[in-house]
Amino acid sequence: MRDPKKRVAILSPIAWRTPPQQYGAWETVAGNITEGLVARGWDVTLFATADSVTRAHLHSVVDKGYEEDSTVDAKVAEYLHISEAFEHAAEFDLIHSHYDFMPLTYSRLTRTPVLTTIHGFSSPKIMPIYHKYRDGYFVSVSDSDRATGLNYLATVYNGIDLSLYPLRERGGDDLIFLGRIHPDKGVHLAIEVARLSGMRLLIAGIVQDKAYFREQIEPHLDDQNILYIGPVNVKGKNELFARARVLLHLNTIPERFGLVLVEANAAGVPVIAMDLGSCREVIKDGQTGFLVSNVAGAVRAVGQIPEIDRQACRSRVQQHFSIETMVEGYERVYSTIFDLEAKRRP
Amino acid sequence: MRDPKKRVAILSPIAWRTPPQQYGAWETVAGNITEGLVARGWDVTLFATADSVTRAHLHSVVDKGYEEDSTVDAKVAEYLHISEAFEHAAEFDLIHSHYDFMPLTYSRLTRTPVLTTIHGFSSPKIMPIYHKYRDGYFVSVSDSDRATGLNYLATVYNGIDLSLYPLRERGGDDLIFLGRIHPDKGVHLAIEVARLSGMRLLIAGIVQDKAYFREQIEPHLDDQNILYIGPVNVKGKNELFARARVLLHLNTIPERFGLVLVEANAAGVPVIAMDLGSCREVIKDGQTGFLVSNVAGAVRAVGQIPEIDRQACRSRVQQHFSIETMVEGYERVYSTIFDLEAKRRP
Repeated sequence: MRDPKKRVAILSPIAWRTPPQQYGAWETVAGNITEGLVARGWDVTLFATADSVTRAHLHSVVDKGYEEDSTVDAKVAEYLHISEAFEHAAEFDLIHSHYDFMPLTYSRLTRTPVLTTIHGFSSPKIMPIYHKYRDGYFVSVSDSDRATGLNYLATVYNGIDLSLYPLRERGGDDLIFLGRIHPDKGVHLAIEVARLSGMRLLIAGIVQDKAYFREQIEPHLDDQNILYIGPVNVKGKNELFARARVLLHLNTIPERFGLVLVEANAAGVPVIAMDLGSCREVIKDGQTGFLVSNVAGAVRAVGQIPEIDRQACRSRVQQHFSIETMVEGYERVYSTIFDLEAKRRP
Repeated sequence: MRDPKKRVAILSPIAWRTPPQQYGAWETVAGNITEGLVARGWDVTLFATADSVTRAHLHSVVDKGYEEDSTVDAKVAEYLHISEAFEHAAEFDLIHSHYDFMPLTYSRLTRTPVLTTIHGFSSPKIMPIYHKYRDGYFVSVSDSDRATGLNYLATVYNGIDLSLYPLRERGGDDLIFLGRIHPDKGVHLAIEVARLSGMRLLIAGIVQDKAYFREQIEPHLDDQNILYIGPVNVKGKNELFARARVLLHLNTIPERFGLVLVEANAAGVPVIAMDLGSCREVIKDGQTGFLVSNVAGAVRAVGQIPEIDRQACRSRVQQHFSIETMVEGYERVYSTIFDLEAKRRP
């Protein structure tokens, strides 16, 4: 499917560098696609922060992510970064955007086709823009996270670099939570499960909702049974996985994809996830973890974790959620777009 | 200078409708230019909120100003509104933007020339965008509010509709402040002047800085000598002008233009302004008011107000700050751009 004559621009977000050092799911996926395409011989230009790390051509007009450098104004940086890619559109056969709704507003000002991977709908207020540009090319990251009326070409599941998360044959003793500290991610429910199971819970991730952390998480921290570790990088994640019996992901709203579920499974860590949104696409119930509908169900599932084969967790990631599988998915989408464009402009 | 074959798009901000009902200086000026061009026979399309009022063609994708409708997301509305104008660029011979730095990032994606009137540099953080697009076409609203290195074609002073602010032959007894309640506008200094002069001060305008209002203004309000009236529309401004001996404009940072100075002068109200930024271009010292450098100077100037000829205040506005004068200024700029473009693309 690879076409070495085609030049692809990957437009990554600039909240963080690509790939991010800690949190930053969209940048992680944009980076994985970029490196995966390069590995398969594509001519790729990555539009990302200047401190990004890539084997592709790097094109940057913003030095550092606006979440990592308080001197950067997010609005100014976004306008500069996105428009820069479109000003160079003629150099590419495809612009593949991972940057939310904003690039769509430039898409009709160029003849270069634009593919948008929708990593999530951040608010109902952004829908008028998707509605206006609904005839564009879209990819969803799960079948569940789709808006009606958009021209979806496919669902392409996010893929990870499995070499970063080696399989651990034996699990640890603790429950772990990994993700943004935000009510959407159900950190408070994970704490309930820990209490009811009488097990230790290790919490890691950036504090996105400060009031939630202060009011619903911090009071439970005791340095013994409920511990907050802070944000973690890949090394920190692996240390966490080494101590994990199971990852708790008791999301309170439909998950869009859930990259952390895949990372845990890759390391052999089973996942207990709320059966909302994409979780049932990512976790195979009873095989790579358990899907539950409430805290009681999660507590029961903790007792069933020994039934899970850790190798089976990793195998499923290898099959469905590797960079290679993802890139093959996108190659099919690119090919569809090139065919459609050739017909449109013979 | 009018060229009825040329089609001009005026891109107004969408914080408020055009013209705004109360506060909204950029929308006021964009509206005045639009109506002034229409009056002189130009084919004008105004890109503004759907509730805007104009004799031009109105093109809208946002119902109401994001400052007037909490259901509108400012970021989403801005991207939709600005890109809409550029998607229609081929229908115009010129896009004349009044909407800050954002439209510049679309300007290289169209062959239609873009003129930007810079109504003010809101933050040093926006300068990288002006720097990148410095070869565009720019107009400053005063000689003082210019950044170095930009391709300015002219300074065109803002113009007002003088019929809205009829001359009052006789002044009132009170000091007035009219503008955003914000430290930049020196409301606290106006209160000091009132105290030291033993005169009443009427304060009108939107509260932009709530902490400033609460801490430095509200404690002085006494319903007798220092009064806060709230935001005012044109009718309210005229009622205020009727009670005014003088308008106090003791700005603490360089003024960019100062539309309210011109409105007051039009009604025959002299102005005492801090000698910062554009004030000395707008107010002729000793003729339409006084330029001062501190509170003591302002108190002295209050005593000299009887020397000011109220008719002279209005005459100066008629000559330099009318819609007609402004539109003639822009017609010269448009003509320059059309000539340059014709040479560039014969």
